[in-house]
This record gives sequence, C-alpha cells and structure tokens, in this order.
Amino acid sequence: MNVNQMNINEDMKIIDIIDEFSASGVLGAGRVGRSCELLANMISQDDMKVFLSVAGPLVPGGLRNVISTMIKRGHIDVLITSGANITHDLLESFGGSHYREYGFDDEKLNEAGMGRIGDVYTKSDDFEVFEKEIITFFDKITKSIAKKNFNDPKSCDKHNIISIKDFLYEIGLLIEDENSILKVAAENNVPIFAPGLIDSMFGLQLWMFTQENNLVIDAIADMHDLSDIVFDSDAVGAVILGGGLPKHYCLASNLLKGGVDAAIQITMDRSETGSLSGAPLEEAKSWSKAKCGSNLVSVIGDVTIIFPLIYAAALNKINK
Amino acid sequence: MNVNQMNINEDMKIIDIIDEFSASGVLGAGRVGRSCELLANMISQDDMKVFLSVAGPLVPGGLRNVISTMIKRGHIDVLITSGANITHDLLESFGGSHYREYGFDDEKLNEAGMGRIGDVYTKSDDFEVFEKEIITFFDKITKSIAKKNFNDPKSCDKHNIISIKDFLYEIGLLIEDENSILKVAAENNVPIFAPGLIDSMFGLQLWMFTQENNLVIDAIADMHDLSDIVFDSDAVGAVILGGGLPKHYCLASNLLKGGVDAAIQITMDRSETGSLSGAPLEEAKSWSKAKCGSNLVSVIGDVTIIFPLIYAAALNKINK
Amino acid sequence: MNVNQMNINEDMKIIDIIDEFSASGVLGAGRVGRSCELLANMISQDDMKVFLSVAGPLVPGGLRNVISTMIKRGHIDVLITSGANITHDLLESFGGSHYREYGFDDEKLNEAGMGRIGDVYTKSDDFEVFEKEIITFFDKITKSIAKKNFNDPKSCDKHNIISIKDFLYEIGLLIEDENSILKVAAENNVPIFAPGLIDSMFGLQLWMFTQENNLVIDAIADMHDLSDIVFDSDAVGAVILGGGLPKHYCLASNLLKGGVDAAIQITMDRSETGSLSGAPLEEAKSWSKAKCGSNLVSVIGDVTIIFPLIYAAALNKINK
Amino acid sequence: MNVNQMNINEDMKIIDIIDEFSASGVLGAGRVGRSCELLANMISQDDMKVFLSVAGPLVPGGLRNVISTMIKRGHIDVLITSGANITHDLLESFGGSHYREYGFDDEKLNEAGMGRIGDVYTKSDDFEVFEKEIITFFDKITKSIAKKNFNDPKSCDKHNIISIKDFLYEIGLLIEDENSILKVAAENNVPIFAPGLIDSMFGLQLWMFTQENNLVIDAIADMHDLSDIVFDSDAVGAVILGGGLPKHYCLASNLLKGGVDAAIQITMDRSETGSLSGAPLEEAKSWSKAKCGSNLVSVIGDVTIIFPLIYAAALNKINK
Repeated sequence: MNVNQMNINEDMKIIDIIDEFSASGVLGAGRVGRSCELLANMISQDDMKVFLSVAGPLVPGGLRNVISTMIKRGHIDVLITSGANITHDLLESFGGSHYREYGFDDEKLNEAGMGRIGDVYTKSDDFEVFEKEIITFFDKITKSIAKKNFNDPKSCDKHNIISIKDFLYEIGLLIEDENSILKVAAENNVPIFAPGLIDSMFGLQLWMFTQENNLVIDAIADMHDLSDIVFDSDAVGAVILGGGLPKHYCLASNLLKGGVDAAIQITMDRSETGSLSGAPLEEAKSWSKAKCGSNLVSVIGDVTIIFPLIYAAALNKINK
Repeated sequence: MNVNQMNINEDMKIIDIIDEFSASGVLGAGRVGRSCELLANMISQDDMKVFLSVAGPLVPGGLRNVISTMIKRGHIDVLITSGANITHDLLESFGGSHYREYGFDDEKLNEAGMGRIGDVYTKSDDFEVFEKEIITFFDKITKSIAKKNFNDPKSCDKHNIISIKDFLYEIGLLIEDENSILKVAAENNVPIFAPGLIDSMFGLQLWMFTQENNLVIDAIADMHDLSDIVFDSDAVGAVILGGGLPKHYCLASNLLKGGVDAAIQITMDRSETGSLSGAPLEEAKSWSKAKCGSNLVSVIGDVTIIFPLIYAAALNKINK
Repeated sequence: MNVNQMNINEDMKIIDIIDEFSASGVLGAGRVGRSCELLANMISQDDMKVFLSVAGPLVPGGLRNVISTMIKRGHIDVLITSGANITHDLLESFGGSHYREYGFDDEKLNEAGMGRIGDVYTKSDDFEVFEKEIITFFDKITKSIAKKNFNDPKSCDKHNIISIKDFLYEIGLLIEDENSILKVAAENNVPIFAPGLIDSMFGLQLWMFTQENNLVIDAIADMHDLSDIVFDSDAVGAVILGGGLPKHYCLASNLLKGGVDAAIQITMDRSETGSLSGAPLEEAKSWSKAKCGSNLVSVIGDVTIIFPLIYAAALNKINK
Repeated sequence: MNVNQMNINEDMKIIDIIDEFSASGVLGAGRVGRSCELLANMISQDDMKVFLSVAGPLVPGGLRNVISTMIKRGHIDVLITSGANITHDLLESFGGSHYREYGFDDEKLNEAGMGRIGDVYTKSDDFEVFEKEIITFFDKITKSIAKKNFNDPKSCDKHNIISIKDFLYEIGLLIEDENSILKVAAENNVPIFAPGLIDSMFGLQLWMFTQENNLVIDAIADMHDLSDIVFDSDAVGAVILGGGLPKHYCLASNLLKGGVDAAIQITMDRSETGSLSGAPLEEAKSWSKAKCGSNLVSVIGDVTIIFPLIYAAALNKINK
C-alpha cells in the first residue's frame, strides 16, 4: 500500500484531517488515524463495553467535559481513574477552578498558596472549600451506611464498610455541578473504579475523617463488581489515557475473559524501561490481558492534544 | 566554575568514575554525580529517615538484592512500592525466577505460558507455585488476626481487618528466602507501604481469597502509621525510582511536615505532560511536599543502570 | 487566568478544536493553541520572512504536499532541509512512492529490496529510476555551468563550482512533477538550503557523478546568500520541524541580526542531554539566535500529527 | 536463561558492576552489559576498523579527553563528528573552557556574553580568542594549499580547494594543546569526517574568511576517502553517540560493503517518529547499512553517563 501525501486547506473539519492522516497511514499520523477508526468502532459496537482508563492530570488539563460527554452519550461503560482526577473534579464541582500563567518559581507559588502541575495551577482557597464540603459528604454517606446496617456510627465494635466504587457513586449523587464526572457517572450508572484513591488529596481527607469516624474503605471489594462486569460483557474495549495504576487495573481486570478485545492507548512514556505505562499494548497478549488477534493501537503523544482530536472525529464517524 | 574534562582508564572503581562525573558536573553525568553525593549524605545523616519509593519492574529488572541490601544495612527506613514488585519478590521467594531471551512474539509467549515485561519474562509454573503458597500465607495470617480479636473466622458478622503495611509485615515473617525484600524488611522492622497493592497478581489472589474468607484490607489505616513516622522524623529524604503511585504517596505523606528535606529521583518520564511521574522534584515545593531550600536531584535514565551505580558509589563514600 | 474545560462535538472544524485548546491553554493542548496562533501571525505579517526548517522523514511521512502548499501560497520564504527530504521528494517526482505495511523483519526487507524508515518503506525499483534520472539532471546542470563560465567540462584544470542552493534551484527547474517541493520552490523563487545535502542518497549519486565529471559543490557559498536574506528582512520567523542540522543552520543564520523574532518548534526530543534538537527555543536567546522578547513556542509531539493540524487551522485564521 | 539479581558492595570496580549488569542481562542494565562486551570486542578485533560517530554536546559535556584517549590508544580508526564538537574542541585548545552553574535566564546570559547548552556555558571572551586564532590557521592553510598548487592565493581565476577531512588534519597539525581531539587525530592519522562542518561557529568563521580569501571547501571529496577506508577494511564496527548527520554519514558510508559488521548506539531519541536519530540499529539492515547477522546494541541513555562507563569497563576487559 502507498503512503498518500496529505492535503491541507483552510476549510477542514477534524474528520477531514483524520482522513488525511489515515490516507497517509504512517508514523504518528497513521497511528492517530487508526486509533480514531478503532475508537469509533468500539463505541458503535453494541456488544462491546468500553473501559476508559485515565491517569495523569486530565481534569486540570481541560478534559473534564470530554469525559463527562463520553459518559452522558453512553460511550463509556466503566471509568477507571487515578485519585487525582477525582480530587480535581471535586475541586471544580465545589466552585473552584484550575489556573494558568503563574510562572515556575515553585517557592513563590508555595507562599502564594498555589500548587503547580506542569503549567496548570491550583489555589489553596479552592482546596479549603473542597475540604469543608467533602467532609459533609463523608458524613452523610457514613450515616447512610450505618443506617442501612442498623449500626451505631459512634460504636467501634461494628464497622461501616463500603467499596471505593460505591463510595464514589454516593459522592456523585450528592454533587450539584452538571459537568462533574462523578455526578454524570452516578446519574448514568457508569461505575468508577479508583484503586489508588487513597493516594490523593481526597484520600488525605478521607484518612483525616476516619480518625474520628467509623468508616472503612474496602480496598478489594471492587474486584468482585469489576469482574462481574467483565464476565457479563460479550466484548471489552479499553481506551487507556496515560498509564499507571489505572492502566494495569484496566487490563488486569480482563484477564478472567482472556483479555480485552481491542485497546487504544495514548502515552508519552517509552517502552525500554519495561515499565507498564510505556509498554506496547501487544505485551498484554502475553499475559492474556489482550486477546490474540485483538485490535491494538498506541499513539505516542500528549493526551490533551490527541484524545479530544480523536474523540471529536470518532463522534463524526459515529453520526454517519 | 569549569567543566573538567573526564579522564578514563582501565583500573577505575565506580567511585572514580562518579568523581569524574562530578568534576565535569554537567548534563547527565553531572546529575549522576550530584545524586550520588546526595544519596551518601541522606544515608549518613543520622537524623534523616530515608524513604525509598519504587515503581516499575525493579525486581524483574535485577534490583531485588540491591533493595534488600539497603534494608539490611539500615540505609532505608521506609519502603513504598508498587504491588508488582511485591508479587515478583514473592515469585522468587517461592523458588521461581525471572527469565530472558524469549523473544517478542507475544502470542507465542502466551501459548507458552510466559508473560513479558520488556525483555524480562515470567513462567506460569512459577505463578502456580506462587498462588498455592501465598494462599497458605493468607490463611495463616487470617487465622492469626481472628485469634487476636477473639473472632470466629467463618463468621460474617465480625470482620478481620488489617492494614496493608501490617499485612506485608506478616507475609514477610512467613518467608524463608533470605534475599526476599519482604522478609528482610520484616526482620529489620522496615515498614512497607503499598497503596496500590490490590492492583497486582498478589491483589488478584487476595481478592479470590476474600471470596471465601473473612479478611478486609483497610486501605487507609496505613496513613496513620506513615504520618506518625513523618512526624517523628527530624528530617526525611526520599529516593524515588520511577514514578507512579509510590512517588505520589511518598511525597504526599511528607505534606504534614512541610515536605521532604531532600530527594533524588531517577526516571525516564518527561515533564511536559504534567504527569507526576515525569514532574521535576522542584514542583513538589509548590505543594509543600518538598521544603523550600531542599536538596533535589533528578537523573533522567534507566533505573536498572543508574541506581546500582549510585548506590555502589554511595556505599564507598559512606565507608570513608 | 482560568483553564477552560474543552467542549467536543461531532461537527467540529479544526479551527474549533484549536480554539478549545487555546481556551484550555495548558499542557500540550495549550502549546498547540499558541503555536497555531503564532504560525498564523508569522504568515500574515507582511514584513516577516518565514524560514521553514525540516528534519526527519517528512516526505516519507506524508507532508510533501503540505510543504509544497506552503510554498505555493507564499507562506514560506526560505526552506532549510535535510538531504533525505530532497532525496524522497525526487523519488516521488520520478514516479516512485513511499509504502506501508511491510512489517519489521529488516533482513527480509533487505532481501526484497525495501528500505525501512519507521513504518514507511521504499523500494529499490524506485531508487533505480531515481539514480538514472538524477544523473541526467546532474549532466545537464554541469554542462550549463560550464557553458556559463566558458569552461570545457572535460578539463580538470578549471572547476565548475555551484552552491547547494543554486544547484537545488537548477534541479527544481528540470522536474515535471507539479507536487515536487523542489519544483514548486524553484518556480516560486523560494531558496532551499540543505547544508547536509552530501549526506543522503542524493549526495551519494552526486559523489559518484563527480568521479567522472568536473563538478564542485561549494559548501559555504550559501552562507552569503542566506545572510543577505536575513539582512534584508525586517523580521524573521522560524518554523522548526524536528531538529538536527537544519535547526542549527536556521537559527545560526539569524545571529547576524540578533536572532529570530519568533519561532515555533515541533519535536519529540528532550532537553536534558543538552543536544540542540531537544533544546528549548529559549536557549537560543543566550546565543543571540532568538531576540530577547521574541515569541517562542515549542510543541512536544510528532510532526506528522501536529504540523498539518496547526497549518490547517492557521490557514483558516488567515482567511478571516 | 535467568535474570541474576545484581549484588552491590562498597569496593566495586566499574568492571564489576558491568558484570552484574550482564548477569542480570535485561532492561537498561542488560543493554549496557552487552554494549560494553561488544565495544571491547570491536576494539580488540584486529581486522575491524572502528568508526566513532559523535553528535550532541560531547566536548562541552566533558567527553573531550575520553575521545582523545580512544584515539591515542588506537581504539578509533575513523572519527565522524558534528561541527559543534570541532568548534568546542578548538575553544579549549585556544585556552578557553566550558562552564557551569550560571542559571537559566537566557536573556541575562545573553547580556553577560554567555551561551547556554543545557546546563553548560560558554563565554564570549573565549570565542573572541577562538576567532582570532582560527583565522591565523585558515590563513596558513590557504597559503600552504596555494603553494602546493602553484597558485597565487589572491587571484580569483584559480581556486584553492581542500576536502573537509584534509582541512581538519591541517588544523590539527597547527594546534598545540595535547588534549585536543583534532591534534591527537592528526598525530595519529585518524581521519576526521565532519560533513556538516559548515553549520557551526567554525563554519561561520570559515565563511567570513572566504569573503576575502580564495578557499573552497569541497563538500563531497571526503566520500572518496571514506569509501576507500571502507573498501580496505575487512570489517567495520560503528560506535554511534547521539544521532543526527554523523550517524547517517557513518552508516551510509558502509553501504558499499553491505553494511557495518557491528554497531553500538547510545541515544535518548525515540523511534516512533521514524527519525534516524532514534531509529533502532536493526532498521539499518534493510538498507544494507548493517549486515544481516551483525551484532547491534542500542542503549537508551545519556551519552555523558553511559559512554565513559562502558569505555572504562571495555578498557579493563581489553587489558585482560
């Protein structure tokens, strides 16, 4: 097959440039073309459950509404995320924001109460609101569990236990912000798995809450529910943004069915260190985490550039 | 200051080449020289607790004994690790091994029962032994907890709860392999924190065990113990190999004391995506996870090359 | 300033998603937004000469027509390129093509007469045509120079000397393919500088030709012409795709005017090795290769994805 | 084969840790072990010519004496380098130096007359000396060529032509600094090829000199001499530090013999862009630039760390 030279003009839609990428078919552009094609197929295929795995600063990086949109439109069946994205989604849900153009003097930023994530910033005021609000949520949820189990929340003889997924569902029901990923997921019954939830500002608040309250987060209960979803699926397609624990959790959960049927990953990590984050998706075949013959596409690039691009084009393909 | 050109000869010790790196003082060599200097200082400084954070395939990559040695020699006070390294440490503890030179045909590897991690391989036979053995450990530990709490392990009214750190300690006591990181850590009272433990083959076995047994892993209890360690430390130095959840957990735990006093990281990840794994250590200052004025050195490189090198040289420095 | 969360829908034009990137303004998306804005400005600004520097497999990677289009539309004033892109442009000019999906068994490819560049392929048949045709061009040009200088081409007492730029201009005039970068550049009087031209298949043919013919390529004459262009420019904007020798040549040529007034670079190389290819554009300010206060934007990404995207959006901006 | 866990102690020589790397045999450490083994073999093999290809800031980065040492000890037969390393070697030869720890404010550095290369610095004073001195060298050499050809150097009817390699040889003879790469190469009859020489501060001086003097650098004459060396070699081994034009030139020159017989590369560039700098050495087999069955090892890492390390260990191996 030939590489068709790309043609560019001033009136192009995203789908047009993706078509040019596919016609060329090689290097980065080729990968983007193929990932878009596969994403559209994954979403369109009725019997395929789509697992979206999210690591890295996607909410701070502007992708909050992209993920919410995917959920609202029924394009995601399962969300697997880092605790950080949960925290940042809540930050915005409680009226806070993410900021830009505050420079790179980290000591000055510290004095000004600003945290830096690359060239994105948070403000301590927003975190103060977050901390106040989230504790009221924890309180409501703890009381609700206790009530369900006829437990006295002040007693230490009995424990109020809840899985991470169910906990995030309850949080989602309490949020008012229509753009919140957690809210939209709860409303649309899209379960959120966050195996590393403890390791986030959210987790810090949770810990502080447990100093004085009776709440136990069951770290392994989610594996029951996630394996049920995998078992009940005819096919599973994974969309992996970044790497980390979410990527591993996403792929490993599919072990029980012999692996995912299709997968896309977008990463800037490299493969030579052997680290999973940069590992080619093909490696997952050796672990039965991707089926032999599965359609796998990796794009090397920044998620904030590549994913909105391929999702927008996939939306266009789906509508036709 | 000048860049001193490096001089190489055939009789060099590691400390000699590190000295040449330091005399040059620039680019990668300069970073390696500075990280070695800092590592030696961290270890030598009596009132500094050293936190070692480990992500990526370090046990499969040959660093198992390096970490054990650090623990035996009292050079690490706290270990924070991914679940994968726990799994791979246990694999070798139960008589298994890691392998090499089995090619890159992932579908053939799958048929042969081999899993690939870069150019490292595992065999399903070893995992079968691991699975049998680890269940006996889970069983012993569950019974032991139950006994402590006067609980009937078969009853579902009461729960046997244990933190991840304590659980890994108990596992460590049961291991016989003298080179096991878990065993050596337990024997030397070096706590192991693994916030993402559930997400590993070990976590999978744990989950399957809980289907039929009464065991609850408390995902947030460790934060009490880790914060106590931080509070009781005059100073904390972090050695961060790779990134991921362990890096975040390591740095975040030091928030309560205004941040680490020194840190070294070795990573191949880049900073432009904003992801924590590739973030410069300086960024942590904005979050009070590294103190203003703290000594921070990043080396861009493969951990399996850089860390043995700087630890060996640091050992030499310490002995003088 | 806030990070505005990006909104995606199925009818988006490229300019729409670039606007979303700019509204978010951070991480990779922010850089793409800013580079597009700057590219549009560079092209629109009447008194600014645009230097396009090209390294890496851009012609094999599908960008041949993108570059030709830029030249035809008067968006480039100077092209600085690697010898490889010249070679590959000629390959297609003589009826050849670039291919895809031939696998990664380099020994088999060698036997089949195919050369691999990532996942792009060339065929030896195309190179055979190229070799025959290019020699006829060399011959015509040599005779033409000789005639101009009243020289006897067979005599070794006198030398036929030509600069690389002028040589490529002459080649361009002989090409018939309307999409050829060399042809379009010659027709539009856009000079092509290729300081590393010798180091390419084209250079190999040139060398073999000089074994039997009297032709001398003056390697430094181009610096006169390029410095004249810089001197005569009110302002210079550089668009740097990839790095290498073209990047250095592009920036260094502007030394004489205190540096470029604006620059964009798209690269996957990193900065920590100190290598120019991955160096941040800001570093050029220390060398007076970029003016203090110049507008500089780097995008970390694959050129085949990023450049068509930002040029398409810039075309749209320019038309408004 | 097994991965042998590495053992570290305080008395290790470089050869000891390289042996540990080889015993482990995987990931980065495995590559370093293999590259060291291969380097020692390349140097020891009597009938193998070693081509060292150098790109990136190696002289500023402290490797000047490493390269000189290789030449003095007869471990390199051909040096292929960027113009930058020639410039920086001359800078030090004329009494200048490279500096460190001057910060990253590029505008301030510009005002202070300092150029930045990562975290390495140059001073304008040193460049002023370089400019004065190098012109005297150009003058001497031009007169010498003229004398050889019975030409009047002031006449423009006849041209004084010299190849880059011969020009660098002549420069080397005029240098006094015993540590100069150019001097040591000239004294030891190791030819230096620098196909991109024009593109450097040295090239800028050369150009300015030609404004007023009769000197023509023949850009393609070197290909005769380099191809003669390749033809006369029983075997060729390439050591490729960084990538760029030197890498291409080094590999391409071996086309005529079916490719190199062995090669090592150390790079931080990645392969997915298709750019040659990050391309795996295996790709060269498809182009007959590496022989089928040739021994090829790539190390992903910073040259200033990896190369002194493997050369020091190779020296030790050779001495046994």
